[in-house]
Amino acid sequence: MSTSEPNWEKIAVGKKVALAEQIPLEYRIPPQLLPPDDQLDVTTFPKESGWFDEKELEITDSSATHILKKIASRSWSSEEVTRAFCKRAAAAQQLTNCLTDFFPAEAISIAKSLDEHLRKTGKPTGPLHGLPISLKDNFNIVGKDSTVGFSSLVGQPAAYNSTLVEVLERLGAVRYCKTNVPTAMMIAESVNNVFGRTANPRNRKLTPGGSSGGESALITFGGSVLGIGTDIGGSLRIPAACTGIFTLRPSFGRFTTQNCRSGLAGQEAVMSVNGPLSKSLEDIILYSKAVVDTQAWTVDPKVLPIPWRPVEHISKLKIAVLWNDGIVQPTPPVTRALKETVEKLKAAGHEIVGTWDSTLHRKAVELLAQMFVADGGKSIRGLLAPTGEPWRPEMQAYSEAAELGTYDMWQLHLERSELQRKFLEQWTSYDGLDAILAPTTPYSTIAHGDFEYVGYTGVYNVVDYSVVSFPCGVVSDMEKDRPSTHEPLSDICKSVQSKYNPSEVDGMPVNLQLVAKRLEEEKVLAMTETVLKAVNPSTVCSLISKVKANI
Amino acid sequence: MSTSEPNWEKIAVGKKVALAEQIPLEYRIPPQLLPPDDQLDVTTFPKESGWFDEKELEITDSSATHILKKIASRSWSSEEVTRAFCKRAAAAQQLTNCLTDFFPAEAISIAKSLDEHLRKTGKPTGPLHGLPISLKDNFNIVGKDSTVGFSSLVGQPAAYNSTLVEVLERLGAVRYCKTNVPTAMMIAESVNNVFGRTANPRNRKLTPGGSSGGESALITFGGSVLGIGTDIGGSLRIPAACTGIFTLRPSFGRFTTQNCRSGLAGQEAVMSVNGPLSKSLEDIILYSKAVVDTQAWTVDPKVLPIPWRPVEHISKLKIAVLWNDGIVQPTPPVTRALKETVEKLKAAGHEIVGTWDSTLHRKAVELLAQMFVADGGKSIRGLLAPTGEPWRPEMQAYSEAAELGTYDMWQLHLERSELQRKFLEQWTSYDGLDAILAPTTPYSTIAHGDFEYVGYTGVYNVVDYSVVSFPCGVVSDMEKDRPSTHEPLSDICKSVQSKYNPSEVDGMPVNLQLVAKRLEEEKVLAMTETVLKAVNPSTVCSLISKVKANI
Repeated sequence: MSTSEPNWEKIAVGKKVALAEQIPLEYRIPPQLLPPDDQLDVTTFPKESGWFDEKELEITDSSATHILKKIASRSWSSEEVTRAFCKRAAAAQQLTNCLTDFFPAEAISIAKSLDEHLRKTGKPTGPLHGLPISLKDNFNIVGKDSTVGFSSLVGQPAAYNSTLVEVLERLGAVRYCKTNVPTAMMIAESVNNVFGRTANPRNRKLTPGGSSGGESALITFGGSVLGIGTDIGGSLRIPAACTGIFTLRPSFGRFTTQNCRSGLAGQEAVMSVNGPLSKSLEDIILYSKAVVDTQAWTVDPKVLPIPWRPVEHISKLKIAVLWNDGIVQPTPPVTRALKETVEKLKAAGHEIVGTWDSTLHRKAVELLAQMFVADGGKSIRGLLAPTGEPWRPEMQAYSEAAELGTYDMWQLHLERSELQRKFLEQWTSYDGLDAILAPTTPYSTIAHGDFEYVGYTGVYNVVDYSVVSFPCGVVSDMEKDRPSTHEPLSDICKSVQSKYNPSEVDGMPVNLQLVAKRLEEEKVLAMTETVLKAVNPSTVCSLISKVKANI
Repeated sequence: MSTSEPNWEKIAVGKKVALAEQIPLEYRIPPQLLPPDDQLDVTTFPKESGWFDEKELEITDSSATHILKKIASRSWSSEEVTRAFCKRAAAAQQLTNCLTDFFPAEAISIAKSLDEHLRKTGKPTGPLHGLPISLKDNFNIVGKDSTVGFSSLVGQPAAYNSTLVEVLERLGAVRYCKTNVPTAMMIAESVNNVFGRTANPRNRKLTPGGSSGGESALITFGGSVLGIGTDIGGSLRIPAACTGIFTLRPSFGRFTTQNCRSGLAGQEAVMSVNGPLSKSLEDIILYSKAVVDTQAWTVDPKVLPIPWRPVEHISKLKIAVLWNDGIVQPTPPVTRALKETVEKLKAAGHEIVGTWDSTLHRKAVELLAQMFVADGGKSIRGLLAPTGEPWRPEMQAYSEAAELGTYDMWQLHLERSELQRKFLEQWTSYDGLDAILAPTTPYSTIAHGDFEYVGYTGVYNVVDYSVVSFPCGVVSDMEKDRPSTHEPLSDICKSVQSKYNPSEVDGMPVNLQLVAKRLEEEKVLAMTETVLKAVNPSTVCSLISKVKANI
C-alpha cells in the first residue's frame, strides 16, 4: 500500500469477502442448519446438527496422537482426516469468525501425496505424518498474507515461509488454515479492523482470549486438533484459559520463531515465543518433542542446541501457590479452582511449600508495559497510516506512548535483568521448589471487550519461564462463585471485580498455570501430567503411560 | 562522586599511588635489578634478573593443570604457589603497568586455609583448588573498586561479588589481583585516564591489545597462569593475539556474566561474554569444563542449562579460510601465518573446503559500530562528567554519536537477526563445514595508539559464535614479511598498511582464530587441539591425550 488514502474499510470488506469465498460450497453450513445468532454455545453444533457424518465426528473428536496412529497404520487416510478438519474448520469460521485464511484444496492435495508416499514406502514422512495443523496468522506461508490484523498488510503475500512452517512440513504435517488475531497481536482478545472479532464457541458473547484466540476458538470447536500460536505477554496461555484447552509457553530458543511476522518487529527486551495448543496434553508433548528433535538450531541461529531431555517422574512435587499477584485478585471461580486444585494435590501426596511471594510481580508488569510501547507506538502507527486505519480503543497505550531513547531503553534492560535475577533467587529460597501453581488470568473468561489484565501471564514472559496453561477441571459456577466482597487490591482490581458476572461465565472452564524455570519445557510438561493425575485420577492413568513412551 | 569539579587528575594520581602501595616491600623490584625503560622485552626478567628462586620460576612457568596436580598431591602448597604468582605479578605491574588492584595478603590467607582444608580432609575443595586466578577489572569483588578506567568510579567499592567470582571461589581458586582495561573496555588497547597504559611484555613499545590487555600482559609475563577477561568486539581475542596466548570467546550463556561492571550497561544488541586466557590450551579446557560443571544456571537466569558435552575427535576437519574480510587486508605476517597454517593442515590430512566468502562481514562491522554508540555516548558521558574527566581520543565515535530512538534500535535488531540468519545459511552452504580459520586481527601486534581495526573479531560477536584465538606458531619476521604492495581494500586498510612496520613487530607471535558455530565451545576447543597437532605435531601429542581425560 503506497497510498495514504483512508481506504482501510474497503480493503477490510474485500478481504472478508475473499475469505468467505475460500470456503467451498460443500463446506458452507446449510442455512436451515445455522444456529441462530443468539445461540451462545456452538460447540454442540457438530454433533447435534446432523451435518457431520460419524466418521467425520470420530476423526475430529480424536486426539492428534490417536489420529497419527490411525494414519500411520493406514486405518485412516490423511486425505479423509484433512477433509474432516477442513469441513469442521469451515463450520468454526462460520460460527465464531476464527480464520484469516483457508486453503482446503491445497491441503487435500498435500494429504493425498502423503497418503501416496505412505502407500508406496510403507513409512510415514515424519512423526506428524498426515496431521492437519492450524497456524496463527503471523506464520508466513509463501503466497499467503500475514496481516496480523492490519489492512495495510492485506494483499502482500509472503515471499518466504516461516522456518517453523518448513519444520512442520518436514515432520509431515498438513497446513490448511490460518487463524485470527488482534491488531499487532497485542490485545488479550482477538479483534482487529480487518477480520473483526473471534467469538468463544462455548459462549459467543464471551472472548476466546488473545492474541492466539483464532486458534483457541478453532480448536475448542473441533476444527483443529493441534494449532500453533505465539506468546509475548500471555497470547498462548490466555486463549487456552478462556476456552479450557492446553498450551505450552516455552522459553525462548526451544521452538524456532524465525521469519514470522511480528507485531512489534525488532523488539527484543522481552522475546515472543510460539507453542502448541490442543485439547490434549499428550498432543502438546508429542508436538514439542517432534519439533525439538528436528534440531532447528541448524537453520535458525536463535534456536538453542538443547535436545529433548527425558525427565524423571517426580512422585512428590514441591509447589508454591500464587493466590494473587498483589495487583488483581482473581475472580471467584479462579480462586476456587486454585483452592480445589491445591486440596487435590495435597491429597495425592504432593507438597505445597507455601504461598509464592508476589512482591516482584508489580515491577515485572510495569516493565512489560514500558517495553511494549518503548518505540512510542511508531511500529504500529507505521502500519495503520498507509490505509488511514484508526487505532483500536484497546491500543490506547500505544497511541499515546512517548518513544524512549536508547539510553533509557538500556536502563530498562538493567531493571529487567535485575528482576530476573531476583526472581530466580526467590525461587531458590523455596528449597527444592519444582513449580508455581498460579492463575492464568483473573477470569475463567469474560465478555467481549472486558478483558483488562494480563499480569498473571506477562510476568513469566519477563523472566522467560516454561509454563503450561491447563484446564484444572473446575468450571465457573454461578452458585458457588459469588462476587468477592474483599477490598480491591488496586484500581484495576476494582474494575476487574466490578465486571465479574457469575451468570455470564457460568459453566466456563478454569485454567491454571503450572510454572517451571527457564528452559524446563520437558519438566513442566511431565509435572502437568502429574498434576492432572492428582486432579482427576481416573481419566489420565492411561495417558501417563502413553506419554512416557513418547518422552 | 557528587561534585562536578574537574578533579579527575587528582583522583587518578591518588589511585595510582594507592595501587603502588599495595605492592609489599618484598615484592618491589630492587632498583639495581630494574631493567632500563628502553629495554623492550621484559619477559626475560624473571629468569635473568636472579630475583626469583628456582622454585618460584618452576611454579610460575608451569601450566595450571600441572600446578593443580602438584597442589592436589600436596607436593606444592597453594600458599607457595600463590606467593610465587603474587611476586611475579608484582614484577609484571612494575614493568608493564598491567594491574588495577592487588591484594596478596588476602590471597595468601585464603591459600593457607585451602592448604589447611586439604591437609585435614585429604580432598581438594574443587577442581581449581588452590590455583591463583587473575581477574579483569570489571569483575566485582566485595570491597574493591571496579572502575573500568573511570575516575568517577574510584573509591566506590563493590557491594556484591560477580557471580563468576563466587563460582571460582567454590571451585577453589584464589583471587589476588585485578587487571587493567581501556576506558569502558571499549578500546582495542589497554589505556585509560586513571591507570594509564599497559605495555606488552614482549615489547614495551607495543600494545598487549585490549580490552583484556592487563590480563594478556600479566599472563605473558608469567604473573598469572590463568586469567579471566571479557569480549564484546574482540576484547579477549585481540589481547591474546597481541601477546601470543590462548583464549576462548564462548557464545553468550555458557559462562555467567551476572553482576559484572559493564562499559555500556544495559546494551544487549550484542552481548558481552567472558572467558579464560592462558599460555596453555589445556588450561583453557580445564577451566571451561570446571565452570560449566558448576551449573551456574541455578544462580544466573541468563546462563543456559547446557552441561559440558564431550565431543568426538574429528580426524579430518573441514575448514574454510578467511584470507581477508574485504575491508582490511591483514598485515604480511598474518597472511603468511594463514598460508603456513593452511599448508600444515593440508599436510596433516585436513580438508580446506575453500575461501570463506566475506560479503556479510561489512554489514556485521557496520552494525557493531552502530550498536555500540546507539545511546549517543550517554552512558560513557555520564561516567566522565562527575569528575570532569575528558574523552580519550580513541573514543571519538562515542563522543560524537547521536542517540537512536527505540524504533530505530528495533530496526537495527532486525538487520542483525537477518545477518545472523544469512551467516548460518552461508555456513551450511559449505557442506559439513567444521570451522573457519581466520585472522584474529590484521596485526601480530602494533605500536601503542595504532590499533585501528577490530572487524576480524567483531563479526563473531555479532553472530555470537564460539571462537578460539590461538598462537599458530608463526612469528613476525622482518625479512619474510615485507610490506604489501597490493592496492588497499579501503581507507582504513590503507591506514593499517601504512602503519605496518616490519622491524617494529619482528619476533612477535601471530594468533589466528578458529571459529565454530554458536554454542559449540567443546567442539572449537577440541578442534583447536587438532589444529595445534597439525601445526606442530611433536609438542602437542601428550597434551591431546591429557585433555581427552578432562573432557
